[in-house]
Parts: sequence; C-alpha cells; structure tokens
Amino acid sequence: MNFEMQRIIETALREDIGTGDVTTEATVDLTTAGQAELVAKEDFVLAGVEFAAQVFRTLDPEVSFEALIEDGQPVRRGDVIAWIKGPAAILLQGERVALNLLQRASGIATMTARFVTKVEGTGATIVDTRKTVPGLRYLDKFSVRAGGGTNHRTSLYDGVLIKENHIAAAGGITTAIERARKRIPHTLKVEVETTTLSEVEEALAAGADIILLDNMGLKQLEDAVAMIDGKAKAEASGGVNLDTVRAIAETGVDLISVGALTHSCRAVDISMLFKS
Amino acid sequence: MNFEMQRIIETALREDIGTGDVTTEATVDLTTAGQAELVAKEDFVLAGVEFAAQVFRTLDPEVSFEALIEDGQPVRRGDVIAWIKGPAAILLQGERVALNLLQRASGIATMTARFVTKVEGTGATIVDTRKTVPGLRYLDKFSVRAGGGTNHRTSLYDGVLIKENHIAAAGGITTAIERARKRIPHTLKVEVETTTLSEVEEALAAGADIILLDNMGLKQLEDAVAMIDGKAKAEASGGVNLDTVRAIAETGVDLISVGALTHSCRAVDISMLFKS
Amino acid sequence: MNFEMQRIIETALREDIGTGDVTTEATVDLTTAGQAELVAKEDFVLAGVEFAAQVFRTLDPEVSFEALIEDGQPVRRGDVIAWIKGPAAILLQGERVALNLLQRASGIATMTARFVTKVEGTGATIVDTRKTVPGLRYLDKFSVRAGGGTNHRTSLYDGVLIKENHIAAAGGITTAIERARKRIPHTLKVEVETTTLSEVEEALAAGADIILLDNMGLKQLEDAVAMIDGKAKAEASGGVNLDTVRAIAETGVDLISVGALTHSCRAVDISMLFKS
Amino acid sequence: MNFEMQRIIETALREDIGTGDVTTEATVDLTTAGQAELVAKEDFVLAGVEFAAQVFRTLDPEVSFEALIEDGQPVRRGDVIAWIKGPAAILLQGERVALNLLQRASGIATMTARFVTKVEGTGATIVDTRKTVPGLRYLDKFSVRAGGGTNHRTSLYDGVLIKENHIAAAGGITTAIERARKRIPHTLKVEVETTTLSEVEEALAAGADIILLDNMGLKQLEDAVAMIDGKAKAEASGGVNLDTVRAIAETGVDLISVGALTHSCRAVDISMLFKS
Amino acid sequence: MNFEMQRIIETALREDIGTGDVTTEATVDLTTAGQAELVAKEDFVLAGVEFAAQVFRTLDPEVSFEALIEDGQPVRRGDVIAWIKGPAAILLQGERVALNLLQRASGIATMTARFVTKVEGTGATIVDTRKTVPGLRYLDKFSVRAGGGTNHRTSLYDGVLIKENHIAAAGGITTAIERARKRIPHTLKVEVETTTLSEVEEALAAGADIILLDNMGLKQLEDAVAMIDGKAKAEASGGVNLDTVRAIAETGVDLISVGALTHSCRAVDISMLFKS
Amino acid sequence: MNFEMQRIIETALREDIGTGDVTTEATVDLTTAGQAELVAKEDFVLAGVEFAAQVFRTLDPEVSFEALIEDGQPVRRGDVIAWIKGPAAILLQGERVALNLLQRASGIATMTARFVTKVEGTGATIVDTRKTVPGLRYLDKFSVRAGGGTNHRTSLYDGVLIKENHIAAAGGITTAIERARKRIPHTLKVEVETTTLSEVEEALAAGADIILLDNMGLKQLEDAVAMIDGKAKAEASGGVNLDTVRAIAETGVDLISVGALTHSCRAVDISMLFKS
Repeated sequence: MNFEMQRIIETALREDIGTGDVTTEATVDLTTAGQAELVAKEDFVLAGVEFAAQVFRTLDPEVSFEALIEDGQPVRRGDVIAWIKGPAAILLQGERVALNLLQRASGIATMTARFVTKVEGTGATIVDTRKTVPGLRYLDKFSVRAGGGTNHRTSLYDGVLIKENHIAAAGGITTAIERARKRIPHTLKVEVETTTLSEVEEALAAGADIILLDNMGLKQLEDAVAMIDGKAKAEASGGVNLDTVRAIAETGVDLISVGALTHSCRAVDISMLFKS
Repeated sequence: MNFEMQRIIETALREDIGTGDVTTEATVDLTTAGQAELVAKEDFVLAGVEFAAQVFRTLDPEVSFEALIEDGQPVRRGDVIAWIKGPAAILLQGERVALNLLQRASGIATMTARFVTKVEGTGATIVDTRKTVPGLRYLDKFSVRAGGGTNHRTSLYDGVLIKENHIAAAGGITTAIERARKRIPHTLKVEVETTTLSEVEEALAAGADIILLDNMGLKQLEDAVAMIDGKAKAEASGGVNLDTVRAIAETGVDLISVGALTHSCRAVDISMLFKS
Repeated sequence: MNFEMQRIIETALREDIGTGDVTTEATVDLTTAGQAELVAKEDFVLAGVEFAAQVFRTLDPEVSFEALIEDGQPVRRGDVIAWIKGPAAILLQGERVALNLLQRASGIATMTARFVTKVEGTGATIVDTRKTVPGLRYLDKFSVRAGGGTNHRTSLYDGVLIKENHIAAAGGITTAIERARKRIPHTLKVEVETTTLSEVEEALAAGADIILLDNMGLKQLEDAVAMIDGKAKAEASGGVNLDTVRAIAETGVDLISVGALTHSCRAVDISMLFKS
Repeated sequence: MNFEMQRIIETALREDIGTGDVTTEATVDLTTAGQAELVAKEDFVLAGVEFAAQVFRTLDPEVSFEALIEDGQPVRRGDVIAWIKGPAAILLQGERVALNLLQRASGIATMTARFVTKVEGTGATIVDTRKTVPGLRYLDKFSVRAGGGTNHRTSLYDGVLIKENHIAAAGGITTAIERARKRIPHTLKVEVETTTLSEVEEALAAGADIILLDNMGLKQLEDAVAMIDGKAKAEASGGVNLDTVRAIAETGVDLISVGALTHSCRAVDISMLFKS
Repeated sequence: MNFEMQRIIETALREDIGTGDVTTEATVDLTTAGQAELVAKEDFVLAGVEFAAQVFRTLDPEVSFEALIEDGQPVRRGDVIAWIKGPAAILLQGERVALNLLQRASGIATMTARFVTKVEGTGATIVDTRKTVPGLRYLDKFSVRAGGGTNHRTSLYDGVLIKENHIAAAGGITTAIERARKRIPHTLKVEVETTTLSEVEEALAAGADIILLDNMGLKQLEDAVAMIDGKAKAEASGGVNLDTVRAIAETGVDLISVGALTHSCRAVDISMLFKS
Repeated sequence: MNFEMQRIIETALREDIGTGDVTTEATVDLTTAGQAELVAKEDFVLAGVEFAAQVFRTLDPEVSFEALIEDGQPVRRGDVIAWIKGPAAILLQGERVALNLLQRASGIATMTARFVTKVEGTGATIVDTRKTVPGLRYLDKFSVRAGGGTNHRTSLYDGVLIKENHIAAAGGITTAIERARKRIPHTLKVEVETTTLSEVEEALAAGADIILLDNMGLKQLEDAVAMIDGKAKAEASGGVNLDTVRAIAETGVDLISVGALTHSCRAVDISMLFKS
C-alpha cells in the first residue's frame, strides 16, 4: 500500500466513522461473523479494487478480501467483483467508504476507456488533467491509467506548462521558455500553451518540447500539427467530448487532454450484498 | 473558517503544489501584481465562494477576494462571481484548486436546486446521503444546503439508520430498535430501513422515529405513508431522479434522499480570467 | 481498535516517552523478559481494559495481555485485572500511561454506577455531559457506558441543545426551534433548555423533542413533568449529586444529566506488580 | 502561545466542534455581536486564563479577551475573571472548551496551593508526578506551578528515576546507578527509589543525586533524612494527603511528591455569563 | 512561505523546544526586549535567510527580521547578515534552529558555488542528487539553486532515471525505455544510466532524452559525448570533486551531478550576537 | 521501533516517494524478487543499521533484513553490512533513503569515535551539542552514542544551560541560578556558561552543577579546573577539533562538547549491490 492510498483511506474512514458507528455498535455483536460480495449493477470498466480491500483491512487486518476481477477489466452487470469475509460489524462500517471509492474509480476508468476506444488506431493518446477532486488526485489518476489512459503531470511540481499568464508575466513565449530551461530540473520537459498558429511557431522556435493547442478548430489543429511536424509533441485540449474526440485525434495530434475524465465523473453502480 | 474547510483546502493545496509550482516559480516574478475575475461560463446555482476565497488567503493572507454573488444565488452565464487581487504568482498557484472546489460545490448546489424545484409545493424535503466523495463530505453537504436541500446524517456517528443487515444481526426490527434506544444518545432519532409494508408496520410498532421506504413503487409508498399516518417521518429512497422525484413526493412522503446529488456531480464551468 | 482510541493512546505515549525513556534504556536490557499483573487496590467498577492492552501492544505488538475481568464488572480490592507478558523494558515504559487511562476510566465508571444504583427503579436514566477532559471525550463517554450510564450528545455536531443564549439570539424559543428544524439533519432531535414552567410550555408548544429542566426545585420539576406529560422527554440538570439524585429521579423525569461523572473524576487505585 | 498549548486547544476544539455546532449555526446569525464574562462560582486559585483566551482566539483572531485576574491569584466567589467580546456564535462555540480547560487548571492550582500552604515554613517543596491526564500533561504541570508547586520531571525523557524494577533488571542499585551515569546526558540528575534504610544507604554510597523514600513511615523518613544528611535530596512519596503532608514535611525531607494534585482533580465552578 | 518550508521549520522548533525552554522560561522575563544580529564568522555564499526569518516569525509574528544580504550573494567574515528585534526570550529560543538551518543552507550554497566556478565557460551545468539529508530535501535543493547550481529531479515522482537494476528487471535498456514511455506522464523526460559505450549506443537508439554516464574515465566520457552528439543530454556522475570537475566538464558533457553538494555539507560559521 | 525513528523514516520516505516512484513502477514487475547487500566502500564505525532495516520494513513488512555487523562496530572497506531480500521494486524504492540515513549515522559515529580515541586515558568525556540537522536530532544523538560519545541535553526542555544572554537578562549569574533552581524540575542539573575565571568563581559560589568553560585557552582551562576542584563538572567548548582535543582533555576537564560531530558530518560511502 502506498502512502497516498493510505492517506485517502484513513481520511475517508475518519470522516465517516469518527467517534463511532452508533447504529452498528448498538445492534451488531462484535463476534458475529459476516460475509458479503461486491456485485456490479451495470456494465463498466473496473478500477480501485485494492482501495476497497484496504478499507476493510485498515479497519481490521484479519478481514479476508478476495478480488475476482482485476482493475482495467470489463465488468458485466451481475458480475461478482470480490468476496469479503470478516466480522459483520467491520463489513457494515467499511461498506460505504469502500463503495464510494470503488464506484468513483470505476466511473473514471469507464469514461476513460470510452475515450480511448474512440481514438483507437489514430495514434493519439488520451491524457487527464488537474481537474480532479481535491484530495483524491492519486485515486483519480490511478483510475485513468486503469481505463487505458495516460497521465498528464500529477501536479504543479512535476511538469512545466507555460500558460497565457505565465507568458504575459515573462514578457513573451521565448523568454518564458528560456527562463524555465534555466530553472527547472533537466528531467522535465517544457510545454507551452498556444491558441494561434503564430504562437505555435514561436513556441517551436524557442524549443518547446510539447505544444498545447488550446481550443483550436479542426482545421487549425491540422495546420498546427503540420507546422510542428514531429519537432515537438502536439497536445489538443478544449471542447473535447465523446462526439468530438475522434475528429480531433484524426488531425494528427499526439495527445488529447480531457478534463471530463475526472471533473464530472459519474459513479458506477455497485452493491455490497451480505450473505448468510 | 472552520476546521474541516481548512483541512480540505490545505490538503488540496499540498496535493497540487507540493514542493513548488515549477512553472510559475521559473517564469513569474514574485513582485508582479495580478488581478483576476471568476466568470460563469454557464447558468448555475452558486456554492463554495468562501472555499475559493480561503484558497488564495491560505497561500497569502494579503490577497484581496471580493465576492459579488452569494452562495445559493442563481448565476447567469457571463456573470462575474468574484474579483481577486494579489501577487500574480499566488493567483496562478491557487487557480486550479479554487476552481476545482468552486465548480464541484456549485455543481452539487445546482443539481440540488433542480430537485428542490421539482418537489415544490408537495411538502417533501430533498436530503442527501453518505454517497459523497471521500474527504469532501463537509463540502458536499455544505453545497446541498446552499442548493436548498437539507442534510441527512453527516456520518455514522450522528444518526441512527438501522438497515437490513443490522436487523438480521440483531434478530429483528423490534430487537434492533430496542437495542439502539438503550445505547445511543437520546438526542438521536432512530431510523429504520424497510422494503415491505409488514416491515413498516413492525418498525412503527417498535417506535421508530423515521421510516426509510427503500426502493418501493409509488403505490407501495402511498400505502406506507397511509400506514405511518404521521406517527413517524416517512423517507423515500432508491430510483430517485429528476423524472421520478415529483411523483414520489406526491405520495406524501416527508423526505426524499437522493444519492445523485453528490455521487455523480457534474462540475459547472467557471473560468478565472486574468486582467491587466 | 477505533481511531479515537488509537489517537488517545498514541498521544499519551508520545507525551510520556518522547525521545526515549532514559532510565529504562540505561538500566534494562532489551532482551530481558518481564511479566506483571494489574491489581486493584480498592473496590470499584472496571472500565478501560482494552485501552490498557492497546498501550502495550502499541509499544510492541508481541506483548501478551490477558484480561481477567471485563469492563463494567465490579472489582474487589486485591483482584487481578489482567496479566501482561513481554519485554521488561516495554512493560516499564507503558506502565504509567496504561494506569493513567485505566484509573480514570474506572473512576468514571465507578461514579456512574453509584448514580445509576441510586435511581434504580425510578425509570430515570443517568446521562453524561460535555464537561469531559479535553482530548479524552471518547474515553470519558466510553467509561460512562461501562458504568451503566447513557451518553448525552458526544459533541456540538451530533445533538441540538438550544440554550438561553441561542434563544435570545434567535428571538424566542419558538423561532429558535423552527430555525433548527429547518437546518439540522432530520435524524437529530431538538432539545431546549428551560428554567421556568412558562418556558417549558412554550418549548412544548413549539414541538421540542426533549426539554431540559435546568436548576429547578423538586416541586417545579414535578410540575414540569406533569405539564410535559410524555409529549417530550424531560431531562433534569443542575445541582445533581449522590444525595439529591434519587429525589430528582422520583419527580418522574426521564433523564438526569450529571457533569460530575466526568469533570471531577477521582482516579481509582490500581497497581502494576512485576512478577519474577 | 507555545506548541503544546496550541495542540491541546486545537485537539479540544476539533473534538467538540468537529463538522460544526449544529445548534448555533441554525439559531445564531454570524453577525450578532456578543459579550460575556467568566465568573467564579466558588473560591479558588486561578490558573489557565491564557488557555481560555486562546480558545476564543483560535476560533476567531478578532475576539477580544481581557483577563482581570492573573494565574496564581486567589479568586473569590462572584469575582469576574475575564471579559470576552466577539461574535455571539464564536462565544457560544468556545464556551465549553474554555471552561473545561480553565476549571481543570484552576482545580489543580487550588489543590496545589492547599498542599503548599500546609508545608509552609518547613523547607519542603511540593512536587507533582506523571499521574496526569493523558494528553494534558503540559496543562497539568503548568497549573501546579501556578498553584505554587514545583514540577517533577515532565516525562520519561527529561529525568532519571530508577525504580524497583529497574534495579532488579540491572542487578542492584549500584549497578543501575553506574549504568545510568554512563548513558544519560550529564545535565540530568539520578534519582533512585528506596523503601528501606539499607537501600537508602546503598543509593547514597553509589552517588544518587536524589533519593525517593517511598511509602515510609514518619520515623523511617526521619532516619532516612538523617542518614542522607544533605548528601542527596530526599523526596517523600506515598500516602500523602492534606492530613498527612505537614508531618511528612517536618521529617526534614526536601521534596514531597503528590499524585493527587493531578490524578483526581476536582474542577472548580466557573460560569460564562452572556451580557446584553 | 511555502508548505515545505513551514513543515521544516515547525518540525525543527518542536524538536528543539518541545514542552518548553526551561532555561529561558526560568531566567528571562517575557517583557524583556531584545535585539541581535546575525554575523558571518567566515567567507561564504549566503542561503536560507528566509528560513531564519520564519523561525522567529513562527515563534512570534511580531518579531522584526531585516535581512541585509540576499540569498546567493557572497558574504565576508564580519558582515552583518540580518537584524532581529523582538522579545529576548523569543530570540533565545529561536537562535539555535535559525542558525542550524542558515548554516547548512549557506554551506551547501558555498560548496555549489565553488563547483560552478570551476566549470565556468565549459557549458556544463552543476546539478545535485537525491543524496540529501532526510526531511530537508527542500532546503538542500533550494540552497543548491542559491549557489548557482541547478536541480536534478526532486524525488522519485518527478523524474525518470532508469538504473542498472531497472534495466535488469525490464530485460534490457530498450524494453525499459519503451515501458517507461508508455506509463509516465509525457511531461517527463527519460534518463538512462550507462557505464559502457555500448549501453550509451543502445540508450541512444531507444530514444533516451538524457544519458547518465556513470563512473566513466575522461576518455570514455569524450567518446560518449561524441557518440551522443547532441541527440540527448549527456550527464556525468561519479568521482566528481573540486579537483576533477573541470576536466570532466571539458569532455563536453552537458550536466555533472555532484552528491557532495549535499551529503557531506560543512556548515558555515555564523553567530547570533545580542545587542544591548 | 521508537516514535521518533518512525517519524524520521516516514518523513523521509514520503519526501522521496510521494505519489510514486515513476521509474520503478514503469519498469519493474511487482512480483519480481530481489536481493541486495549493503557493502562498505571505505573504513568506518557503523551506526543506524536499524534505521535502514525499518526503511524497507515500512515499505513492506515482509522484507527480510539481516544485519551482519552491529552499530558501534568498526567496518572495513568491502565488508558486507547487511543482506536484504524482498520484492525488487521495494528494494529499489527504499535504497536511497536507507543509504542516506545509514551513511549519515555512520559518518557521525565515525567522527565521534575519532574524538573519543584521541582523549583515551584522560578521563574526559566527548559530548555532542544541539548543532544537529533540523528534524534528525534523534538520529544524530543516537549516532554519537554508537560512536562512543555521550549526549549533552537533547533539547531545550531536558537540560538547563544558562548562557551569557540569560545571565544578562536575569541580572547576573547568581540571580540566574537562583531563579532556575526555583522553577525547574529538581531532576535537572544547572549548567552555566562562563568565559572568565571570575565568572567561574561566581558560578561555583552560586552552586552551579556544571560549568561550561567557553573558548578558553589551555592555561585558562587548567586554572578553571583547579578552581572548580571537583565541586562541579567542568565542560570545555569552542575551538575543539581533532588537533586540539587531546590538549584540552589533558587540562583535566570532565567533558568536551564538540559541535563538529554533527553539524558538518561527512557521509561515509556505502553501496547497495543487487544480487541475482
């Protein structure tokens, strides 16, 4: 278990249980054994099984959690995702948190997989953004990978993306790129946001490694890709949805970043059924 | 500022900035002043303005943040929500976190308001659930209130909801309610989940304060409401969406709990525009 | 182990051991085995055995702690409460913290049991207050339950108690109750503090679920109980001690809240005896 | 404000307020101004005023808190200890935590002062022990000083006290003292617990700086003091109460440690009265 | 102040002050004003002035700290670096922590500046490594920049460096690079460690962005640089000290990483002189 | 494992791994087993083996770590210090942190041992100072003990050292010592810093337990030792290095404090070699 997964799970459990689950403590004997299964109520792509497992193990290391399907796999309505055995009280206390995490993770993976399928064969890669839910970026980006997408930078510390306002503050694209080159770790590439072909041209001349083509039309994207001609990576963003993504991919861009993968995730429907 | 708001904001900023915003540090001088406005890109109900304000104040107590619209108010596309003035570097570093919080909070408030509008005049109250994003329950429940909804219990510690598995473990509805009454603070009401009219009858006889009518059809809801006859609060849940909520409300239930308010929130579209 | 128990124990151990137990580190070899027993030095009602066990297990998961008496049971002077085996150094380092927790918990349980015994047969329930030691509310309320009492609300977030100053700020009992009803989770009851019969009458009319009768004389309590007549729960507070509690209970109130259960707890006398 | 005071206050406020004071939030407008005074309901020695002040300032830095009496001063029933002005909601939210801290601190100071008065003129110093409430040692020891007592070691890291079991593990008093001398910082004295005169003799010969005379009778204490003869500090412990402390002091011991100062503190009675 | 700076300073102050500075509390009145200056006792390059300032401001926001020299500037023996005014007790309590931070930071900056000077004119950049003191990486890397160096990746999350054991596990350089390309954010470059020219050749063919030439002789470095021929960045490491760095730089490598900048830092000599 | 060791290791791992080791995650399969040995690349005195072991166990409790040499023992170039077996990915992720801790600890132990050897036979004890790296004082002081030195006070809370500025604030050495005696735990000795023989005389008369002779010449030290004549401990400080320490020890001082043990530690050279 990694530290971020641990932090997310502990925060969620403290938030939900706090000083105690008054209902369960009052009605369920600590020695009552329980077992349950996680069942899909619709079709989706699975992600976050290990998060669900760790929720129960954090409450009680003795809980047995057996996953039947792996992250990244398609799940059909009615499929059993995992078996859980342990004290009934523990199963009841962890249920909501485990489902909240698993349903969100799978929702993101499912959405990602739909975008990835749409661009199949075009050579374009679907990447996420920093439009994640505060506190859950690790989960959100993990789920994008499970869905077949690739991550953009995690945060402000592990990627350079020079935007309009950085350019304005620095006094131009060229100066901004030069300043960045001098200051940043050499292990980071330099990406520059552009909205016109002349900005693309300047970014290219200044040696940008990646050029973000923001809110450009299809024709403009094609022209930009032609101008860039492999000398930098071309990333499209803005106005990307399931209806538009294929055409965008066909302009020849290398990467398409999609905020909707994470900012408006629909939780998939999963139930935890107790067995006797 | 309350402790939970503070925890949410600090977690979000640490997650996004970590060891530093390499782009801004490289390109923007710390002494450069900046100003920006938060602008609505669509119509929605506002929530979370104080969260956005505190993001910038946490980064720099000197930042000036002037809200022009209050939480709970309708916002029109193009409306300016707030003015922000401070060092350009601080504005750039806080932008994404502030928007992520504000867009989610407003998305929840907007969805809540739509449900509330649907049931207007019926006497039913729209309430949320524990299907919130892990770590953000305070924000999510805050936003439901801003949208005109009412909160269900915050967590497992401040409300009793005896579900099917508690009943099974306790050996019946009556025993479960009796056990709860003896153990819980007398300031808490006892709510019991039911799926049939005979369960409703037993819960009522055992003195439940609130009866959750889970996944019942409209006719069954009406019968349950008639049986309860004001001796307990009747709460409907399951299969609630914008198409079904009115009819459910018209069965006479007191409360309708809606997981979709928070578990599948669509972030509203808000931009932060820098001014020169 | 619950999160609050864990927090309390870790805080206590860090506070007492910090950078190290210089005496034990200097004089006791880490490989020296030890065993000890917890012995009662007076008669009392036991509470907190699991806290004591977890103190040692936190220091060393290999420590064996066998409890011979359960929480809530009466203990006689000389009784052995538990056996502990493990490295002598660990036993010495955990001794003071384990005793501090166990002695306080048992002191509270003992005092609670004495109040509970006094009101036996009257139908009145003994409840605690928020007059607990800062940081130990979970332990204090846990101990009240072990002693046969019932908990009042845990904190400000899980119960509504409208006091004199809330009433003044809201502009009267009726308004205050109405405002509360609209804003609070429906799983919470509304309790109102009163000091006169006319306030009781207003609270009742406004639909209070629980009426706190503060610092009333016995005659006044009887009149209030008669007026309330089962339409709300009647809770007495103020001037409650072992000499007065029986007469208060006999007025017919449902609940008696007693600050002295926790705010002035006398630690019971327990020794940890090392065996060779 | 020191870090420990800050930790204690923040822990206490989070414990009591958590996700919010539902009563005050529902009934009191955030803009309503309030003022209140802290009034003594009995005679006592004051301690902890700064803790009370910081409770309110932590909730809202704008609150004005004016102390009229200083820590360590005697307070008469009816005396006003402090004036507090600020938002009524903040005053209501901080009230219980501020009182819980102030009442405990003053209770400890008052008890300490009574012991100190008893031994006046004898040359004996009253010191505390590690029998404090877990998590509040800083407050407890602070209050002992306010009451005129002196602190024993804070914790296991800042003082050496070789007890019976350390001696047994090390193989004798002399070996234990030698081992300690070699390992501990030279800024720490070495104290040894003894229960017989022959142990006192051995401790003295081995160069103990302080000799703890545990549970000795008055005659035995006198003999021990005579034997020690100023070559080490003599500290009495065990069976110390307000009835016995004077006689113990008159045996000539330098220090008397009293667990009852902190382990069974009675909270003094203080009210917070709201003014209009 | 950034979060990492804040964490470092708070950790350092808690570690040093804990439950209180017993000496200062016993001897210095809280109302005594003090002033002091930070004076260089040798020649060096300054770094960390803001850390020193924040130490005092964290203890007391009212302390006035005026820096006379900026980070990155050369300091001469006897130079006054800063003036500090505030309560004497605060100045005494912050002294050691402020100096420990400032002396280490300046030590690193000084060593870095010596390496940077040595390679002047060669086009090689001096970069640091992850051989920093645990917990102080932010300070250490900050100081390298102040001394004119450039940072390598901060940590394992913001840079890819494929070492011998990664290559072995992946089954060869080519496979390892391919796997990395597929999994990592596209904002990160791929660096590969090599020890022979044939490895350099393979890394180059597989499209490595940076090639680490580890422990190669001067001749081998020259050959590697020739082979790389600008198609990737060439970084030398191993056996780098002030005597060897110039010759290494002259082989034409782009970057030279130097563990000694941080792993064996000599603290420079700075005094805090109190003024009356 | 003690709490401070745990804090240091977790801080170090979070700092280095954060959201994940992107290189290892991309290139090494989680099921690949690995083994490695820690090998000395030079001669030194070992310290910190348990820290290294706990780094790997914190990442994965199943890792097997077998130490072949104990802390405090001399290590020769080429010696194998420990064997580590576990998942290759875990070994790679813990490598740098383990080495950073072990190399620093051993560096400090080695330097300490050199000072201790120099004063052999003189009766003087080598002690450390508070000039440690912020956040690592526990490790630094632990390593001094491993090297044969003794610790001075850990921090400001567990030792009294009255310095020039305390004396000035208190109004003289005698007053300062008197104030301290009244306020501090009686388990602490009182140490006073002096720079002249007349200060030594005053400190002695006022009953100081330890007299710090700061920056005195050899002749002055001898005179001070003669004046003190066993009535207090004499501690020399200032200008102590490997060339001067023997002569200082021969003046007859009891203790010599050496800042260089920790403030400018050279990390020893240790490699982690992976085995197949």
